[in-house]
Amino acid sequence: MEREHIIKQYDAELNEIRTLILQIGGKVEIIISHCIQALVDRDSDLAEKTIPSDHEINHLEVLIDEKCLEVLALRQPAARDLRFITLALKIVTDIERIGDQCVSISKRVIELNSETPLKPYIDLPRLAEAARTMVRECLDAFVRGDELLARQVCENDQFVDDLNVQIQRELLTFMMEDSATISRALKLNYISKCLERIADHATNVAEMVIFMIKGKDIRHTKV
Amino acid sequence: MEREHIIKQYDAELNEIRTLILQIGGKVEIIISHCIQALVDRDSDLAEKTIPSDHEINHLEVLIDEKCLEVLALRQPAARDLRFITLALKIVTDIERIGDQCVSISKRVIELNSETPLKPYIDLPRLAEAARTMVRECLDAFVRGDELLARQVCENDQFVDDLNVQIQRELLTFMMEDSATISRALKLNYISKCLERIADHATNVAEMVIFMIKGKDIRHTKV
Repeated sequence: MEREHIIKQYDAELNEIRTLILQIGGKVEIIISHCIQALVDRDSDLAEKTIPSDHEINHLEVLIDEKCLEVLALRQPAARDLRFITLALKIVTDIERIGDQCVSISKRVIELNSETPLKPYIDLPRLAEAARTMVRECLDAFVRGDELLARQVCENDQFVDDLNVQIQRELLTFMMEDSATISRALKLNYISKCLERIADHATNVAEMVIFMIKGKDIRHTKV
Repeated sequence: MEREHIIKQYDAELNEIRTLILQIGGKVEIIISHCIQALVDRDSDLAEKTIPSDHEINHLEVLIDEKCLEVLALRQPAARDLRFITLALKIVTDIERIGDQCVSISKRVIELNSETPLKPYIDLPRLAEAARTMVRECLDAFVRGDELLARQVCENDQFVDDLNVQIQRELLTFMMEDSATISRALKLNYISKCLERIADHATNVAEMVIFMIKGKDIRHTKV
Protein backbone atom coordinates (compact mmCIF):
# COMPACT_ATOMS: atom_id res chain seq x y z
CA MET A 1 0.00 0.00 0.00
CA GLU A 2 2.80 2.38 1.00
CA ARG A 3 4.75 1.45 -2.12
CA GLU A 4 1.71 2.02 -4.29
CA HIS A 5 1.28 5.44 -2.77
CA ILE A 6 4.89 6.34 -3.57
CA ILE A 7 4.52 5.19 -7.17
CA LYS A 8 1.36 7.25 -7.58
CA GLN A 9 3.07 10.29 -6.15
CA TYR A 10 6.07 9.76 -8.44
CA ASP A 11 3.78 9.54 -11.47
CA ALA A 12 2.05 12.72 -10.36
CA GLU A 13 5.41 14.47 -10.13
CA LEU A 14 6.43 13.41 -13.62
CA ASN A 15 3.05 14.56 -14.90
CA GLU A 16 3.53 17.89 -13.17
CA ILE A 17 6.80 18.37 -15.06
CA ARG A 18 5.02 17.50 -18.31
CA THR A 19 2.26 19.99 -17.55
CA LEU A 20 4.74 22.74 -16.66
CA ILE A 21 6.64 22.14 -19.91
CA LEU A 22 3.42 22.51 -21.90
CA GLN A 23 2.57 25.59 -19.88
CA ILE A 24 5.90 27.30 -20.61
CA GLY A 25 5.50 26.23 -24.25
CA GLY A 26 2.08 27.84 -24.43
CA LYS A 27 3.46 31.09 -23.06
CA VAL A 28 6.32 31.03 -25.54
CA GLU A 29 3.93 30.45 -28.44
CA ILE A 30 1.92 33.49 -27.39
CA ILE A 31 4.96 35.72 -27.02
CA ILE A 32 6.17 34.76 -30.53
CA SER A 33 2.77 35.66 -31.98
CA HIS A 34 2.62 38.93 -30.04
CA CYS A 35 5.98 40.30 -31.06
CA ILE A 36 5.24 39.76 -34.76
CA GLN A 37 1.66 40.97 -34.45
CA ALA A 38 3.12 44.10 -32.89
CA LEU A 39 5.22 44.59 -36.04
CA VAL A 40 2.41 43.97 -38.52
CA ASP A 41 -0.14 46.10 -36.64
CA ARG A 42 2.48 48.72 -35.66
CA ASP A 43 1.29 48.17 -32.10
CA SER A 44 4.12 49.15 -29.74
CA ASP A 45 1.93 48.60 -26.67
CA LEU A 46 1.65 44.96 -27.63
CA ALA A 47 5.41 44.82 -28.14
CA GLU A 48 5.92 46.21 -24.62
CA LYS A 49 3.79 43.40 -23.22
CA THR A 50 6.37 40.81 -24.21
CA ILE A 51 8.58 41.95 -21.31
CA PRO A 52 6.25 40.83 -18.48
CA SER A 53 5.46 37.68 -20.51
CA ASP A 54 9.18 36.93 -20.68
CA HIS A 55 9.42 37.32 -16.90
CA GLU A 56 6.68 34.72 -16.49
CA ILE A 57 8.58 32.39 -18.80
CA ASN A 58 11.78 32.90 -16.78
CA HIS A 59 9.89 32.16 -13.59
CA LEU A 60 8.50 28.95 -15.06
CA GLU A 61 11.98 27.88 -16.14
CA VAL A 62 13.27 28.19 -12.58
CA LEU A 63 10.24 26.28 -11.30
CA ILE A 64 10.73 23.42 -13.77
CA ASP A 65 14.44 23.21 -12.89
CA GLU A 66 13.56 22.97 -9.21
CA LYS A 67 10.91 20.29 -9.82
CA CYS A 68 13.35 18.23 -11.87
CA LEU A 69 16.07 18.45 -9.22
CA GLU A 70 13.55 17.50 -6.55
CA VAL A 71 12.44 14.39 -8.43
CA LEU A 72 16.07 13.44 -9.16
CA ALA A 73 16.99 13.82 -5.49
CA LEU A 74 13.95 12.14 -3.93
CA ARG A 75 12.95 9.47 -6.46
CA GLN A 76 16.28 8.55 -8.00
CA PRO A 77 14.65 7.67 -11.29
CA ALA A 78 16.23 5.19 -13.66
CA ALA A 79 16.34 4.53 -17.40
CA ARG A 80 13.58 6.23 -19.36
CA ASP A 81 12.41 8.49 -16.53
CA LEU A 82 15.96 9.61 -15.84
CA ARG A 83 16.36 10.55 -19.48
CA PHE A 84 13.00 12.33 -19.46
CA ILE A 85 13.96 14.49 -16.47
CA THR A 86 17.50 15.32 -17.58
CA LEU A 87 16.12 16.29 -20.97
CA ALA A 88 13.43 18.42 -19.37
CA LEU A 89 16.29 20.28 -17.66
CA LYS A 90 18.04 20.86 -20.97
CA ILE A 91 14.94 21.60 -23.01
CA VAL A 92 13.65 24.26 -20.67
CA THR A 93 16.83 26.29 -21.27
CA ASP A 94 16.13 26.36 -25.00
CA ILE A 95 12.52 27.31 -24.41
CA GLU A 96 13.41 30.13 -22.05
CA ARG A 97 15.87 31.57 -24.57
CA ILE A 98 13.09 31.73 -27.16
CA GLY A 99 11.43 34.21 -24.80
CA ASP A 100 14.64 36.26 -24.80
CA GLN A 101 14.65 36.29 -28.61
CA CYS A 102 11.08 37.59 -28.59
CA VAL A 103 12.04 40.43 -26.27
CA SER A 104 14.89 41.31 -28.64
CA ILE A 105 12.43 41.28 -31.55
CA SER A 106 10.03 43.52 -29.64
CA LYS A 107 12.72 46.12 -29.02
CA ARG A 108 13.39 46.37 -32.75
CA VAL A 109 9.66 46.42 -33.48
CA ILE A 110 9.19 49.43 -31.20
CA GLU A 111 11.98 51.24 -33.05
CA LEU A 112 10.53 50.28 -36.44
CA ASN A 113 7.03 51.38 -35.47
CA SER A 114 8.27 54.93 -35.03
CA GLU A 115 9.52 55.04 -38.64
CA THR A 116 7.81 54.79 -42.03
CA PRO A 117 7.30 51.12 -42.91
CA LEU A 118 9.91 49.91 -45.37
CA LYS A 119 7.56 47.45 -47.05
CA PRO A 120 4.47 45.35 -46.27
CA TYR A 121 5.46 42.51 -43.99
CA ILE A 122 4.50 39.25 -45.67
CA ASP A 123 7.38 36.85 -45.22
CA LEU A 124 8.28 37.73 -41.62
CA PRO A 125 4.83 36.68 -40.30
CA ARG A 126 5.14 33.47 -42.34
CA LEU A 127 8.55 32.86 -40.78
CA ALA A 128 7.19 33.56 -37.30
CA GLU A 129 4.26 31.21 -37.85
CA ALA A 130 6.57 28.42 -39.01
CA ALA A 131 8.84 28.92 -36.00
CA ARG A 132 5.88 29.00 -33.60
CA THR A 133 4.52 25.75 -35.01
CA MET A 134 7.94 24.13 -34.61
CA VAL A 135 8.03 25.20 -30.95
CA ARG A 136 4.59 23.73 -30.29
CA GLU A 137 5.39 20.52 -32.12
CA CYS A 138 8.77 19.91 -30.48
CA LEU A 139 7.20 20.19 -27.04
CA ASP A 140 4.24 18.01 -28.03
CA ALA A 141 6.77 15.48 -29.27
CA PHE A 142 8.58 15.70 -25.93
CA VAL A 143 5.60 15.16 -23.65
CA ARG A 144 4.05 12.47 -25.88
CA GLY A 145 7.35 10.81 -26.73
CA ASP A 146 6.43 11.15 -30.41
CA GLU A 147 9.52 10.47 -32.50
CA LEU A 148 7.81 11.03 -35.84
CA LEU A 149 6.68 14.50 -34.85
CA ALA A 150 10.17 15.33 -33.54
CA ARG A 151 11.65 14.31 -36.90
CA GLN A 152 9.14 16.47 -38.70
CA VAL A 153 10.27 19.48 -36.66
CA CYS A 154 13.88 18.82 -37.69
CA GLU A 155 12.82 18.66 -41.33
CA ASN A 156 10.81 21.89 -41.13
CA ASP A 157 13.92 23.77 -40.01
CA GLN A 158 15.09 23.82 -43.63
CA PHE A 159 12.01 25.78 -44.68
CA VAL A 160 12.74 28.39 -42.01
CA ASP A 161 16.41 28.63 -42.99
CA ASP A 162 15.51 29.09 -46.66
CA LEU A 163 12.88 31.72 -45.91
CA ASN A 164 15.34 33.61 -43.70
CA VAL A 165 17.93 33.63 -46.50
CA GLN A 166 15.28 34.86 -48.95
CA ILE A 167 14.23 37.68 -46.58
CA GLN A 168 17.85 38.70 -46.07
CA ARG A 169 18.46 38.80 -49.80
CA GLU A 170 15.43 40.98 -50.39
CA LEU A 171 16.51 43.37 -47.62
CA LEU A 172 19.98 43.55 -49.14
CA THR A 173 18.54 44.79 -52.44
CA PHE A 174 16.63 47.50 -50.55
CA MET A 175 19.85 48.61 -48.86
CA MET A 176 21.87 48.60 -52.09
CA GLU A 177 19.28 50.67 -53.94
CA ASP A 178 18.63 53.29 -51.30
CA SER A 179 20.91 53.97 -48.35
CA ALA A 180 18.00 55.66 -46.54
CA THR A 181 16.55 52.17 -46.00
CA ILE A 182 19.68 50.67 -44.41
CA SER A 183 18.84 51.29 -40.77
CA ARG A 184 15.31 49.86 -41.09
CA ALA A 185 16.45 46.96 -43.25
CA LEU A 186 19.07 46.04 -40.63
CA LYS A 187 16.38 45.89 -37.96
CA LEU A 188 14.18 43.66 -40.11
CA ASN A 189 17.23 41.55 -40.87
CA TYR A 190 17.80 41.18 -37.13
CA ILE A 191 14.17 40.14 -36.54
CA SER A 192 14.42 37.55 -39.29
CA LYS A 193 17.55 36.10 -37.69
CA CYS A 194 15.89 35.99 -34.28
CA LEU A 195 13.02 33.98 -35.76
CA GLU A 196 15.47 31.66 -37.44
CA ARG A 197 17.20 31.23 -34.06
CA ILE A 198 13.84 30.38 -32.44
CA ALA A 199 13.39 27.62 -35.01
CA ASP A 200 16.93 26.43 -34.21
CA HIS A 201 16.01 26.13 -30.54
CA ALA A 202 12.95 24.08 -31.50
CA THR A 203 15.14 21.87 -33.70
CA ASN A 204 17.60 21.38 -30.83
CA VAL A 205 14.72 20.32 -28.60
CA ALA A 206 13.40 17.94 -31.26
CA GLU A 207 16.84 16.34 -31.65
CA MET A 208 17.06 15.81 -27.92
CA VAL A 209 13.57 14.27 -27.92
CA ILE A 210 14.64 11.75 -30.56
CA PHE A 211 17.63 10.97 -28.35
CA MET A 212 15.31 10.40 -25.41
CA ILE A 213 13.10 8.03 -27.37
CA LYS A 214 15.75 6.12 -29.26
CA GLY A 215 18.26 6.14 -26.43
CA LYS A 216 20.93 7.02 -28.93
CA ASP A 217 22.27 10.34 -29.93
CA ILE A 218 21.23 11.76 -33.29
CA ARG A 219 22.54 15.21 -32.49
CA HIS A 220 25.42 16.21 -34.70
CA THR A 221 24.41 13.70 -37.35
CA LYS A 222 21.99 14.11 -40.21
CA VAL A 223 18.42 13.29 -39.14
CA MET B 1 36.53 -1.47 2.40
CA GLU B 2 33.88 -2.04 -0.26
CA ARG B 3 32.19 1.24 0.66
CA GLU B 4 35.49 3.09 0.50
CA HIS B 5 36.13 1.66 -2.93
CA ILE B 6 32.74 2.90 -4.17
CA ILE B 7 33.36 6.39 -2.78
CA LYS B 8 36.74 6.53 -4.48
CA GLN B 9 35.23 5.44 -7.77
CA TYR B 10 32.45 8.00 -7.42
CA ASP B 11 35.00 10.78 -6.81
CA ALA B 12 36.93 9.59 -9.84
CA GLU B 13 33.77 9.80 -11.93
CA LEU B 14 33.02 13.34 -10.80
CA ASN B 15 36.61 14.29 -11.54
CA GLU B 16 36.33 12.76 -14.97
CA ILE B 17 33.33 15.00 -15.70
CA ARG B 18 35.33 18.02 -14.48
CA THR B 19 38.26 17.06 -16.72
CA LEU B 20 36.01 16.56 -19.74
CA ILE B 21 34.39 19.96 -19.17
CA LEU B 22 37.82 21.62 -19.10
CA GLN B 23 38.79 19.65 -22.18
CA ILE B 24 35.76 20.78 -24.19
CA GLY B 25 36.40 24.32 -22.89
CA GLY B 26 40.00 24.20 -24.13
CA LYS B 27 38.84 23.12 -27.57
CA VAL B 28 36.25 25.87 -27.68
CA GLU B 29 38.85 28.47 -26.72
CA ILE B 30 41.08 27.33 -29.57
CA ILE B 31 38.26 27.37 -32.13
CA ILE B 32 37.32 30.96 -31.12
CA SER B 33 40.94 32.06 -31.60
CA HIS B 34 41.25 30.25 -34.91
CA CYS B 35 38.16 31.67 -36.57
CA ILE B 36 39.22 35.25 -35.77
CA GLN B 37 42.87 34.61 -36.62
CA ALA B 38 41.59 33.34 -39.96
CA LEU B 39 39.89 36.70 -40.51
CA VAL B 40 42.86 38.85 -39.47
CA ASP B 41 45.42 36.79 -41.43
CA ARG B 42 43.02 36.20 -44.35
CA ASP B 43 43.76 32.51 -43.85
CA SER B 44 40.83 30.51 -45.24
CA ASP B 45 42.61 27.21 -44.63
CA LEU B 46 42.60 27.98 -40.93
CA ALA B 47 38.91 28.90 -41.15
CA GLU B 48 38.21 25.51 -42.77
CA LYS B 49 39.85 23.78 -39.83
CA THR B 50 37.12 24.93 -37.46
CA ILE B 51 34.76 22.35 -38.97
CA PRO B 52 36.65 19.23 -37.77
CA SER B 53 37.29 21.05 -34.46
CA ASP B 54 33.56 21.59 -34.08
CA HIS B 55 32.96 17.87 -34.68
CA GLU B 56 35.36 17.08 -31.84
CA ILE B 57 33.45 19.48 -29.60
CA ASN B 58 30.15 17.83 -30.55
CA HIS B 59 31.60 14.44 -29.78
CA LEU B 60 32.79 15.62 -26.38
CA GLU B 61 29.33 17.02 -25.61
CA VAL B 62 27.73 13.64 -26.23
CA LEU B 63 30.40 11.97 -24.09
CA ILE B 64 29.85 14.36 -21.18
CA ASP B 65 26.07 13.87 -21.39
CA GLU B 66 26.54 10.13 -21.25
CA LYS B 67 28.94 10.32 -18.28
CA CYS B 68 26.50 12.54 -16.39
CA LEU B 69 23.58 10.21 -17.02
CA GLU B 70 25.69 7.25 -15.96
CA VAL B 71 26.63 8.87 -12.66
CA LEU B 72 23.03 9.94 -12.05
CA ALA B 73 21.78 6.41 -12.70
CA LEU B 74 24.44 4.48 -10.81
CA ARG B 75 25.39 6.77 -7.90
CA GLN B 76 22.16 8.62 -7.26
CA PRO B 77 24.04 11.69 -6.06
CA ALA B 78 22.43 14.12 -3.63
CA ALA B 79 22.65 17.83 -2.80
CA ARG B 80 25.77 19.54 -4.13
CA ASP B 81 26.87 16.68 -6.38
CA LEU B 82 23.41 16.42 -7.90
CA ARG B 83 23.50 20.13 -8.69
CA PHE B 84 27.00 19.80 -10.11
CA ILE B 85 25.97 17.03 -12.50
CA THR B 86 22.69 18.54 -13.63
CA LEU B 87 24.49 21.81 -14.30
CA ALA B 88 27.22 20.00 -16.21
CA LEU B 89 24.42 18.69 -18.43
CA LYS B 90 23.09 22.20 -19.01
CA ILE B 91 26.45 23.92 -19.33
CA VAL B 92 27.77 21.57 -21.96
CA THR B 93 24.90 22.57 -24.26
CA ASP B 94 26.01 26.21 -24.07
CA ILE B 95 29.61 25.27 -24.68
CA GLU B 96 28.80 23.12 -27.68
CA ARG B 97 26.78 25.95 -29.23
CA ILE B 98 29.80 28.23 -28.99
CA GLY B 99 31.47 25.82 -31.40
CA ASP B 100 28.52 26.24 -33.76
CA GLN B 101 28.89 30.03 -33.61
CA CYS B 102 32.57 29.67 -34.54
CA VAL B 103 31.69 27.57 -37.57
CA SER B 104 29.21 30.28 -38.62
CA ILE B 105 31.94 32.90 -38.18
CA SER B 106 34.36 30.82 -40.26
CA LYS B 107 31.91 30.61 -43.15
CA ARG B 108 31.66 34.40 -43.27
CA VAL B 109 35.44 34.70 -42.90
CA ILE B 110 36.00 32.52 -45.96
CA GLU B 111 33.61 34.72 -47.96
CA LEU B 112 35.30 37.91 -46.70
CA ASN B 113 38.78 36.59 -47.46
CA SER B 114 37.89 36.43 -51.15
CA GLU B 115 37.03 40.15 -51.20
CA THR B 116 39.06 43.34 -50.63
CA PRO B 117 39.26 43.99 -46.88
CA LEU B 118 36.79 46.67 -45.81
CA LYS B 119 39.03 47.99 -43.04
CA PRO B 120 41.77 46.80 -40.69
CA TYR B 121 40.25 44.54 -38.07
CA ILE B 122 41.03 46.00 -34.64
CA ASP B 123 37.86 45.75 -32.58
CA LEU B 124 36.69 42.32 -33.73
CA PRO B 125 39.85 40.58 -32.40
CA ARG B 126 39.41 42.51 -29.14
CA LEU B 127 35.82 41.32 -28.95
CA ALA B 128 36.88 37.74 -29.69
CA GLU B 129 39.58 37.88 -27.03
CA ALA B 130 37.11 39.18 -24.43
CA ALA B 131 34.60 36.45 -25.32
CA ARG B 132 37.29 33.76 -25.23
CA THR B 133 38.43 34.89 -21.78
CA MET B 134 34.84 34.78 -20.54
CA VAL B 135 34.48 31.21 -21.80
CA ARG B 136 37.66 30.12 -20.01
CA GLU B 137 36.70 31.89 -16.81
CA CYS B 138 33.13 30.61 -16.63
CA LEU B 139 34.37 27.03 -16.94
CA ASP B 140 37.16 27.60 -14.41
CA ALA B 141 34.50 29.01 -12.09
CA PHE B 142 32.41 25.89 -12.67
CA VAL B 143 35.05 23.29 -11.94
CA ARG B 144 36.53 25.22 -9.00
CA GLY B 145 33.17 26.36 -7.64
CA ASP B 146 34.50 29.94 -7.71
CA GLU B 147 31.57 32.32 -7.25
CA LEU B 148 33.66 35.49 -7.44
CA LEU B 149 35.06 34.51 -10.82
CA ALA B 150 31.56 33.63 -12.07
CA ARG B 151 30.33 37.07 -11.04
CA GLN B 152 33.25 38.68 -12.85
CA VAL B 153 32.22 36.89 -16.05
CA CYS B 154 28.69 38.28 -15.72
CA GLU B 155 30.10 41.78 -15.27
CA ASN B 156 32.41 41.48 -18.28
CA ASP B 157 29.43 40.78 -20.51
CA GLN B 158 28.67 44.51 -20.51
CA PHE B 159 32.04 45.30 -22.09
CA VAL B 160 31.31 42.83 -24.88
CA ASP B 161 27.81 44.21 -25.45
CA ASP B 162 29.14 47.77 -25.65
CA LEU B 163 31.95 46.84 -28.02
CA ASN B 164 29.49 44.98 -30.25
CA VAL B 165 27.23 48.04 -30.41
CA GLN B 166 30.22 50.23 -31.24
CA ILE B 167 31.32 47.88 -34.05
CA GLN B 168 27.80 47.80 -35.46
CA ARG B 169 27.61 51.59 -35.45
CA GLU B 170 30.89 51.92 -37.27
CA LEU B 171 29.80 49.39 -39.89
CA LEU B 172 26.54 51.28 -40.35
CA THR B 173 28.45 54.45 -41.27
CA PHE B 174 30.42 52.48 -43.87
CA MET B 175 27.19 51.18 -45.38
CA MET B 176 25.53 54.60 -45.41
CA GLU B 177 28.50 56.24 -47.12
CA ASP B 178 29.15 53.64 -49.79
CA SER B 179 26.66 50.98 -50.85
CA ALA B 180 29.53 48.94 -52.30
CA THR B 181 30.55 48.11 -48.72
CA ILE B 182 27.13 46.80 -47.63
CA SER B 183 27.65 43.13 -48.34
CA ARG B 184 31.01 43.01 -46.55
CA ALA B 185 29.79 45.16 -43.67
CA LEU B 186 26.83 42.81 -43.15
CA LYS B 187 29.20 39.86 -42.87
CA LEU B 188 31.37 41.68 -40.31
CA ASN B 189 28.19 42.67 -38.47
CA TYR B 190 27.20 39.02 -38.37
CA ILE B 191 30.61 38.00 -36.99
CA SER B 192 30.37 40.65 -34.29
CA LYS B 193 26.95 39.35 -33.26
CA CYS B 194 28.23 35.78 -33.16
CA LEU B 195 31.00 36.86 -30.79
CA GLU B 196 28.50 38.70 -28.63
CA ARG B 197 26.40 35.52 -28.56
CA ILE B 198 29.46 33.50 -27.46
CA ALA B 199 29.86 35.91 -24.54
CA ASP B 200 26.16 35.44 -23.76
CA HIS B 201 26.66 31.69 -23.58
CA ALA B 202 29.55 32.23 -21.15
CA THR B 203 27.37 34.55 -19.07
CA ASN B 204 24.59 31.97 -19.00
CA VAL B 205 27.09 29.39 -17.75
CA ALA B 206 28.41 31.81 -15.11
CA GLU B 207 24.88 32.50 -13.87
CA MET B 208 24.22 28.78 -13.55
CA VAL B 209 27.51 28.36 -11.67
CA ILE B 210 26.44 30.99 -9.14
CA PHE B 211 23.18 29.08 -8.80
CA MET B 212 25.12 25.89 -8.13
CA ILE B 213 27.23 27.50 -5.43
CA LYS B 214 24.57 29.59 -3.73
CA GLY B 215 21.84 27.03 -4.14
CA LYS B 216 19.52 29.82 -5.18
CA ASP B 217 18.69 31.09 -8.58
CA ILE B 218 20.20 34.36 -9.70
CA ARG B 219 19.21 33.87 -13.29
CA HIS B 220 16.68 36.42 -14.49
CA THR B 221 17.66 38.84 -11.74
CA LYS B 222 20.40 41.44 -11.72
CA VAL B 223 23.73 39.95 -10.62
